[in-house]
Formats: sequence, structure tokens, C-alpha cells
Amino acid sequence: MMKKLETLRLKIAELTRQTHELGIPIMIVFEGVAASGKTRLTNDLLLNLDAKYTKFIATKTPSEYDLRYPFLQRFWETLPEKGHINIYFRSWYSHFVDYKIHQIKYPLYKDEKILKSEIQGFECMLQDDHHEIIKFFIHINEEKRQKHIAHMKSNPLTRWKAQEYEQIVSPDVYLETLKPMLDQTWKEIDYSDREDAIITMYEHLHERLSKAIDKHKKREDKKDGHFSPSFHSHLFGKPKNKVSKEAYQDKIEALQLRMRELQFALYERKIPLILVYEGMDAAGKGGNIKRVRTYLDPTGYEVNAISAPTDVELNHHYLWRFAKTMPKSGHIGIFDRSWYGRVLVERVEGFASEQEWMRAYDEINAFEKMWVNDGAIILKFFLSLDKDEQLKRFKAREEDVDKQWKITDEDWRNRDKWAEYVEASHDMIEKTNTEAAPWYVVAADHKKTARIEVLKYIIQKCEEKLWGVQQY
Amino acid sequence: MMKKLETLRLKIAELTRQTHELGIPIMIVFEGVAASGKTRLTNDLLLNLDAKYTKFIATKTPSEYDLRYPFLQRFWETLPEKGHINIYFRSWYSHFVDYKIHQIKYPLYKDEKILKSEIQGFECMLQDDHHEIIKFFIHINEEKRQKHIAHMKSNPLTRWKAQEYEQIVSPDVYLETLKPMLDQTWKEIDYSDREDAIITMYEHLHERLSKAIDKHKKREDKKDGHFSPSFHSHLFGKPKNKVSKEAYQDKIEALQLRMRELQFALYERKIPLILVYEGMDAAGKGGNIKRVRTYLDPTGYEVNAISAPTDVELNHHYLWRFAKTMPKSGHIGIFDRSWYGRVLVERVEGFASEQEWMRAYDEINAFEKMWVNDGAIILKFFLSLDKDEQLKRFKAREEDVDKQWKITDEDWRNRDKWAEYVEASHDMIEKTNTEAAPWYVVAADHKKTARIEVLKYIIQKCEEKLWGVQQY
Repeated sequence: MMKKLETLRLKIAELTRQTHELGIPIMIVFEGVAASGKTRLTNDLLLNLDAKYTKFIATKTPSEYDLRYPFLQRFWETLPEKGHINIYFRSWYSHFVDYKIHQIKYPLYKDEKILKSEIQGFECMLQDDHHEIIKFFIHINEEKRQKHIAHMKSNPLTRWKAQEYEQIVSPDVYLETLKPMLDQTWKEIDYSDREDAIITMYEHLHERLSKAIDKHKKREDKKDGHFSPSFHSHLFGKPKNKVSKEAYQDKIEALQLRMRELQFALYERKIPLILVYEGMDAAGKGGNIKRVRTYLDPTGYEVNAISAPTDVELNHHYLWRFAKTMPKSGHIGIFDRSWYGRVLVERVEGFASEQEWMRAYDEINAFEKMWVNDGAIILKFFLSLDKDEQLKRFKAREEDVDKQWKITDEDWRNRDKWAEYVEASHDMIEKTNTEAAPWYVVAADHKKTARIEVLKYIIQKCEEKLWGVQQY
Repeated sequence: MMKKLETLRLKIAELTRQTHELGIPIMIVFEGVAASGKTRLTNDLLLNLDAKYTKFIATKTPSEYDLRYPFLQRFWETLPEKGHINIYFRSWYSHFVDYKIHQIKYPLYKDEKILKSEIQGFECMLQDDHHEIIKFFIHINEEKRQKHIAHMKSNPLTRWKAQEYEQIVSPDVYLETLKPMLDQTWKEIDYSDREDAIITMYEHLHERLSKAIDKHKKREDKKDGHFSPSFHSHLFGKPKNKVSKEAYQDKIEALQLRMRELQFALYERKIPLILVYEGMDAAGKGGNIKRVRTYLDPTGYEVNAISAPTDVELNHHYLWRFAKTMPKSGHIGIFDRSWYGRVLVERVEGFASEQEWMRAYDEINAFEKMWVNDGAIILKFFLSLDKDEQLKRFKAREEDVDKQWKITDEDWRNRDKWAEYVEASHDMIEKTNTEAAPWYVVAADHKKTARIEVLKYIIQKCEEKLWGVQQY
């Protein structure tokens, strides 16, 4: 028996070295009632894996801070890197029980079904991105469980831990809630015999890791874009009424002051506002954002200007780096370029495979939906520009000593791929213009008009959310 | 006046593009009583800087989570990258006021002087590492301040914010506390005239940024090690009494069980335990750590196996990546290699300049002192190995199919630099063997003996801290 276990341990150590080398992210979930043996099982596993790429994540009852984010946020933030292993001691499933049983009030969640479908969507999305999710559910007979608790209690140094067990949800309620969710994606383990349990765990890991490695070796992602060169978009029209210079200053200031009032109102109501900007180079995204920010209180908003990912970011699910910077409740998060890079630059430049960017539309919709479920307002602006107007602006930038830094070789290279970017933008808007998070296409050939238009739209949408009607 | 301001804004935008290019990290601190104009000043600055590399950090009253870490932890965690700018809206100074006035109880802090000297040490350390710290203190006449508050109150949407002002520390107490700390490193700004204030801010920034750029251009770090080839260490002796195979199993298990009890006791008393392992390759650090962990509850400790830094880590102060992973109160943080890499591998391989690693001894001592001030136990183990014994182990690893992965070309390369590593290790121990955080040199030629020795030492030190005497 001990010999068999030793062999299995060595084998798992070897397989995880392989998944590390191959860059497969692994998530191992342990669920089960308190004192059922989760600690002892995970500990055996943990000691057997390389600490360099293994993380142990204990899921506690959500803190006040956690409650300022959507249900799954903390799991998004801690996703494993490629080739790394996360061991979850209690997971999004316990989190779900916490929510249901303790009636923990997520700001605007109402529906258990939504949470369940978010869990399902989360796992699917990660599996599509080749994350291996292995889920264990630990059972134990009640007598043995009580014996373990009694043992903990008998030692004055560990007594408080045993007392903690009793404050946690009762085994009956926990099981009643999670039992219906135990489908064939779970491996159940009976901990009543410790050694059996450990062997079962390792055998299952052996099977799953071997399969994951096989799958990985067979997989070949095609990395090429997908464009019809004859494509023409009708999305990019001219604005109808240009605002005059004189009218602009008054109008914009009034809107900006209103925007500031709304920031306070959103904060008080704990509603997060997410503003996404995409558009052609030189379409005026930065200037537009600046006008939205002008009177905002800087303690309550953040601008995320998105550049090329770092090496650590590249080693995670592409949504990870955005998930980490989403605004907490009541705050405003402004994205100067965003997760839509997946279906724009990554598609056009071939950084994402066709499979990957095609899948991304649904993934992004699900990601945004999660935030809207949590009560967020998401508004997405596409600043569209005429090709001639872009050229004019590029040249003007080159001639202005204070703006030269804005124009780089990359801008010219992107311009060469104008048609591809137009098609990618068109597809993006068509496929991700959801009710939850709509796109607003702004003709940006006249900057001042575009600024007024965007501010008006944000204000309207915020007022609708806050009071059901437009006040301003 | 407006023209002058516009010119200054452009100039500052240009200078910050330069500091970004040059990789100079900038920290701009704003302090001042509530409603003195900090928001309006920082906002002007913020709108003028590139969001790609500017971060706005609002320092709030510490949360329960913050209180599980040392005084300066949150500022360590958010240090700017090279070339980035952090704007601090309230800073470690307000944090100090919070501590003093609200009597916020940091676990084991008692002494205001300690906090002050930590602040000073923190700023010095960053300045030594070429961080530019620019501090503004905002004044305003009381009449104008009251007018601003009245204005906020008059609007139903911003009223709650004005009410918040009143809950914050009174201006008198705030000023009384911080006034004595305002030395020539601060720039005081009178906000009673808004435009004057903004111009003063930009002029001071102009002066400071220009100087920082000049200094940077003049600086040339020498990147070479510093070794006397004839050096021989007397640190590396043989263990006196080898433990026998039979005695080992009983002894180690008893110690491991005691270690587990102590983990619970430390947790209950909220004392963080930090274990640092350094030593020659193949000295048995991993195996030693594994024996310490064997019965620990995995929800309460973390092993940090330190590899080469990522690009993001390289772009920060070298202690940043460690600061981020330090254990919270009551937890155990085990470091398999550590911040001492600065004076070991970085010195030997020339990754750090002589100036940098020479300075590091003091920096590390100060960093560790901060944790000990906060109530932490820091124990540092150097596992020393004979050169012949290392060769034997390298060869054994190469022959064992389950251990081959442990031995890489890098290990052989390091071995070629044996003498340099010995000298660097010797200097490290001599210069960082402090009362607060002592080194324990363990002769690791006999692994089992080393494991027993380390466990015994950890247990002894924990018991002393917990109960003043050794119990076991």
C-alpha cells in the first residue's frame, strides 16, 4: 500500500513537471464539509508538488472588500498562470453556498440561477482556453468526522480551530445545497479510510493529467486572421450636426459638472460604471476621455490605458489582466482600449488564433454580463474615423512639437491594415452589441461634437439606471 | 496667467515623458487638511499626465486587512514601476496621523518614534534607488475652506461627501501632528488663490523633474562584483552529532507535530512567522522546508520559491516583489531563496552594481526590522555544504530518474563560482545577522540532522516569543 502510494506520488510529481513545461494551467478544487479531510488531502498533494508553480488558495467567507465586486471576481483575480497549479481549498462552490445560506448580500444579485450559470460559464470559458479543472468532493462518515473534531478540541492550542468548524455551515445544509450540483465533472472521494482516499485522489489526478497532456500535444492552433478583402463597412458615417465653437464651451462644461454629480450619486448607490473606448488611431479617444474626467473626483475613478501585455499577463487567460483592474462598487473604470484587443489587434496581427478570437465574442459577452448582473453599467464607445481625416491628423501631429510623441511607426503600420481593422471592428460591434453592454458608435471626425455626444450618452444612461428616467 | 499655466502644463507633460523614457520612478505626495484643495490640484495634474504610466493612489483609513500588515505595507505594495508616476492623495503621513490620532491599534506597535523612523528609512531607501519623491503640503485660509464645504453641502448629490469631511480628523489636530514633520523636503502651497496654487505646483514639479533628469543622465552605475579570490570562510563546519536513522523518524515527527501546534498558537496571537532559506545548491533547502511544512495547516502558510524576476518585477524596487508576498498576521511565510538574492546571485553575476548590493545590507536590515517592529518573528537559515559533498549530490541527482530535473546547467555554472558564492554568503551573514532577524548557519552535509536542527530552532524561537520561555 505505502509502496503504491509512493509510486503514485512520484508519478504525479513527474506529470506536473510536464504540465508545467507544456504551459498547461491546472485548477484543482477541493470541496466537502468542515473536518471531512480536505486539509489532510490537500496537504499531501501540496507537499508533493513544486512550490515554484503551485499556489494554495483558501476561499474564506467574503469580506466587505470582496462584496464590492461580482460573485466570481476573486477567482478571476487569482487564475493560474500557464503551467501553474492552483489548489482551491473550498472554491466558487463554497462561495455559492455562502451566498445562498448566509444570505450574503451581493449588491444587486437576486437570482441563484444567475450564479449557477455564471459558475458554469466560468468553467467553460477556462476549459476552452485549455485550463484543466479537476474537482474533488470529499465525504467522510460522521463518526470519524466527530472523532477528528474531538481530537482538535482536546488540544488547547488547536481548540479554537475546532470551534471554528461549528460556526461554519452545518454539513446537512452544505450537502443539501451542493449535492444537486455534483455531476460527472466531479470526483467524489470517501475519506473514511485515509490511505484509500489519498490513493483515489492521486489515481484520478494521474488519469486527468495524462489526458490533459495528450490533448495538449495533439492540439495545434492555427494562427491566421480571417478577412474578406472586399469588405466595406457602413458603420462609419459623418456626424450630422457639428457643434459650434461658441456653443461647445458652455455645453461641455454643463455636462462635465453633471457628470461629477452623477459620480457622487453612483458612489452613494454603489453602482460601478465601466466605460470602454475603442476606435481608430487618432480618433480622439484620449481627448474624449479627458473631457469625461475633467471634473470627476480622482479618488473614485481610474483610467486604464491598455498597452501590450507583459510577460506575466501573456501567461494568463487574456481576460485576467482586465479582471484585475475592474472598478469596485461605486467607482468608475475607464478603459482606453480594452479586452476588445482580442478581436481587434490580436485578430488582425495574428496574435490570437482564429479559434481563439472567434470564441472571444461569446467570452467577452459573458464577462460583461457578469458585471451587469452585479449591477454595473457598461458603456462602450467606438470612435470611428474617416481614412482621410486620420491622415490629416497624423500629419498634424508630426508637425506639432508637443504632439510628435503621439505618433509612432506603429500607427503608420496599423494604417496600412485599415481595411482589416475596419472589418474586425465591424464584426466586433455586430457580435458584442448586447442589451447588457451596448456599443455606441460615434463619428469622431469632429472631435468636439464627439465629446458632447459621448458625455450626453453617459449621463443619460446613468440617470436611467439611477432613477429610471432621464433628469437632465 | 492662463497662458503661463498652459505653457507649464505642456512642459510638465514633456518632462514626464522624459522621466518615463529614462525609467525614473516618481512619487508625488499631496497632504493637507480635508477640503483644502488637494482634489482640485491633483486632478489638474492627473489630467495633464499620460494615463499609461500614471497611477492615482488614495490613502484611506486602514481596513481590517491593512491592519494585518506592518505600517508601511500598503505603500510597499504599490511602489511605482521604473518610469511610472504615483500620485498619492494622502500618503504615509496621513497614515501616521490615522495611527496617532485615531489610536488605530497596529498589532504590536507602541512607539510613535518607530513609525517616524520607518517613514524616514522608507523615503531614504527609495531615494537611494533613484525614486524621485516630491511632497506637497496644501494650506488654505479657513474662510475659503468653509465656503467650499458649504458649496458641496448645497448640492443634494454631493452632500454626503461634505459630511465625510466632518468625520475626518479636525484640521487643528491634523496640522498639529504633521507640522513638526514639515521640513525642507516639502513644498508648501497656499490654495487660497487657485491659479497661483496650480502654478506653484507646476513650477516646483518643473524644477524637481528637471533636476531628476539631469542627475539620471550623470549617473553611471558600475556593474561589477567585488571579491578577494584568496578568501576562505570558516563558517562551513561539519555537524557534530549525526542523528541516527532510527532516532530520526521519532524525533522529526514529534517536532513536526509541535510545529503544527505552534502554527495554531501563532495564528491565535496574530504573530507572523517568516522563515528564510538560503544556501548552496543541493544543500537540501527544499527537503528541509518540506519537513517543516509536513503537518502545517495549508490555509495558514505559503511557500515562496523565488526564481528569476519577471519583467514587471525588474521594473520595480528589488524588495517590491517580496513585500507583496509577505505573510499577513498569524500566517507563516517560507522563502526558498529570498531578498538575499540581491547580495548573492545579483552580486556574483553582476546583475546589481557594487553600489547597489553594498547598500542592500542596510536596506534589508531595515526591511526586516519593519516586520519585527510589527511583531513578526524572522528566522534565517543558511544551509552550508562542503564542495565535495555538493559534487556527490549533483552526481547522485543525475543518476536518479526522479531527480534529474533538479539538476540543470545553471547549477554547474554556479558551482564554477563556488568561491565567489562563499565570499558573498560570508559577507551577507556578517552584515545582516541582526538581533531582530538572526542567521542560523546549519551544516547541511547530513540532511536529516539539518532538518532536526532547523525544526528545533524554529520551535524554540516561537516558544520564546509566545510564552517567553521554551516549553518543549
